Amino acid sequence: MKLIETLKNELREIADLKGAVNVLYWDMETYMPKGGTAARAKQVAMLEAMVHERFIGEDVSNPLGELVNLDSGEIINGLDDETSRLVNEIWLDYHRAVALPKEFVEELSHASSMAHPNWVEARENNDFNLFAPHLEKLIALKHREIGYLGTQDTPYDTLLDEFEPGFTTANINVLFGELKTALVPMIKAIQESRVETKQEILHQHYDADKQWEFSEMILKDMGYNFHCGRQDQAVHPFTIDFHPTDVRVTTRINEHNLLDCLTGSIHEGGHALYEQGLDQKWYGTPFCQAISYGIHESQSRLWENLVGLSKPFWEYYFPKLQTVFPENLSAVALEDFYRAVNTIKPGFIRVDADEMTYNLHIMLRFEIEQLIINEGVDVASLPELWNDKMEEYLGIRPETDT
Amino acid sequence: MKLIETLKNELREIADLKGAVNVLYWDMETYMPKGGTAARAKQVAMLEAMVHERFIGEDVSNPLGELVNLDSGEIINGLDDETSRLVNEIWLDYHRAVALPKEFVEELSHASSMAHPNWVEARENNDFNLFAPHLEKLIALKHREIGYLGTQDTPYDTLLDEFEPGFTTANINVLFGELKTALVPMIKAIQESRVETKQEILHQHYDADKQWEFSEMILKDMGYNFHCGRQDQAVHPFTIDFHPTDVRVTTRINEHNLLDCLTGSIHEGGHALYEQGLDQKWYGTPFCQAISYGIHESQSRLWENLVGLSKPFWEYYFPKLQTVFPENLSAVALEDFYRAVNTIKPGFIRVDADEMTYNLHIMLRFEIEQLIINEGVDVASLPELWNDKMEEYLGIRPETDT
Repeated sequence: MKLIETLKNELREIADLKGAVNVLYWDMETYMPKGGTAARAKQVAMLEAMVHERFIGEDVSNPLGELVNLDSGEIINGLDDETSRLVNEIWLDYHRAVALPKEFVEELSHASSMAHPNWVEARENNDFNLFAPHLEKLIALKHREIGYLGTQDTPYDTLLDEFEPGFTTANINVLFGELKTALVPMIKAIQESRVETKQEILHQHYDADKQWEFSEMILKDMGYNFHCGRQDQAVHPFTIDFHPTDVRVTTRINEHNLLDCLTGSIHEGGHALYEQGLDQKWYGTPFCQAISYGIHESQSRLWENLVGLSKPFWEYYFPKLQTVFPENLSAVALEDFYRAVNTIKPGFIRVDADEMTYNLHIMLRFEIEQLIINEGVDVASLPELWNDKMEEYLGIRPETDT
Repeated sequence: MKLIETLKNELREIADLKGAVNVLYWDMETYMPKGGTAARAKQVAMLEAMVHERFIGEDVSNPLGELVNLDSGEIINGLDDETSRLVNEIWLDYHRAVALPKEFVEELSHASSMAHPNWVEARENNDFNLFAPHLEKLIALKHREIGYLGTQDTPYDTLLDEFEPGFTTANINVLFGELKTALVPMIKAIQESRVETKQEILHQHYDADKQWEFSEMILKDMGYNFHCGRQDQAVHPFTIDFHPTDVRVTTRINEHNLLDCLTGSIHEGGHALYEQGLDQKWYGTPFCQAISYGIHESQSRLWENLVGLSKPFWEYYFPKLQTVFPENLSAVALEDFYRAVNTIKPGFIRVDADEMTYNLHIMLRFEIEQLIINEGVDVASLPELWNDKMEEYLGIRPETDT
């Protein structure tokens, strides 16, 4: 067999294993009873360690090493463009993975799994202290990761490279700088404007089951394939794939905020269309994986904002929505509804943020993450720092620490 | 470390892996979209093969081999009673597993996973032919398994030994013979009796959500711990454990049969109490596993029949049920309800069968399974054989082949 085929076979098996781990993650954030946390964290960590071990094992490194210099990343001559590009992408992942000890991968996975339910509990009880020790542990692990991988422009850049390969803090600062320059005065002007939208339209009581059905109808219309996926509820909406034939979305329902479920579904539907659209021919290889988190998010926000908040979208769907919720909407004009869903108003929750202030939420996180990783800001001071930055970026200050 | 501790550590890790596979099974029978079947079958088969490989690997066989003669099963001298018994139980599992090639384990798992959705579809469409090729494949694999394990009293006994260790066809024939002698005339007498129960009480329209809530209340009352478990819907109700801290039950709802959901929940609740009650101190070892399928079923049927169909049970719960379904039950007398749930009447579906005819369903399967395995009855003739046996045992004949 050709070397590249040998390599692809092994990568497919590793992807099967990774897909299995993802089933465990999905369950962890949708249905798992709290008592199952500790056992699940061990199971996931064990499987993640296996995925890692196999990916840096001989069945990958031997064929890969014949196609690329494993240390320098230099591709051997004579490969066609496609194969050459594929080998380069595999090597980038390999090069990063091989620097991490298996025990570290297991520990990081375990700590993340143990942290999640505590994040949920801290959120429910509005008590940052429940989450703080977990966050501290995760930050310490991330510092260890940087130690293994080596510092790039800054320590934060080392981590950024996993999410946005090739993108640097410096690049992003330029991008965010331009965006901020344009956005901040625009948001200020909107806040000072006398135009009022009728937001109360969205905050009546909307039956959960009906919201759910409506969101699933829209997912179907978007082209999301329910034969190869499904929607469930989660505290923090996410999309996850077990294989291109099983890509799942989640959303959350708030009976007093019509947009929570709907925009959650559309946003995650955007992610899912990207995953469902990947070419299975390349299953297991980087060509059948998202190229970066930024590109992934471009798909979800395209659907959420450019489609889901547009006039044509609501010209089509508002009459349907009125039929589902006649008691809430039969007397509401399309124009008022359209303006209400497009209200620009700073809020505390990123997931619920409008199209414009959302960007500020991201910038705020980008800045705070750098302070944590590059400047060593400690966890105890985070709530105040967070609240200060919220005030600076969004002009509002949370009253509590979560 | 003591040998037995080394062994137990390895067994705990294998149990973690097995628990992870069970999450995949659970999802497969509860939420998985149909399109995910092929990928899931591969994932499960791969993980099952890993579990197998590790269980027959050196990290088990080396310490185990110091405690027991791996070929003969003879325990070394000097072990205390508890350890000696534990080693014997581990060896029984090991001895069976080591005879099976990894590829076979993978193939059997894969075939089972691929068969399940086709069983569901065949059931929905009342078309045995959709399932027949899968059943043929599974039977062929079972014959291969017998080949690896060696024929005991009969080929069927080889398979039986996995489910009821130490029990033989001969034992069961004696047991079932006695049971049949007593049951058949009793059921006949009941059928000829002029006493009529008011079964129509149970076949009114009962709202699905309310049935669900009622069944969960009863599970809680039974002592089922929802902090370490949850209930979901499945076509064929089952209980599964990922760890003693995450034991899940499933049931099914029929809005025109009040007993489907309720007895399903109580039955599975019985299984789950057994699993939740296992001593975690022994996690990973046979002491923290069910001793046999028969004992497991004794727990589920104890709850379903001896508790859930009893007079005291309904004296307590019927008034509550009347509150939930006043339109259906407010005019019904406890005595009539109690008699209705205890109706003895042959039916086609084992899961729905009453306390007495249920046993005949089991005997029928026991006989047909022996005919398949020992006599080589082919799959094509199964529907007729099944229908004949239904008539013989239960006095009723299905009109179709599923």
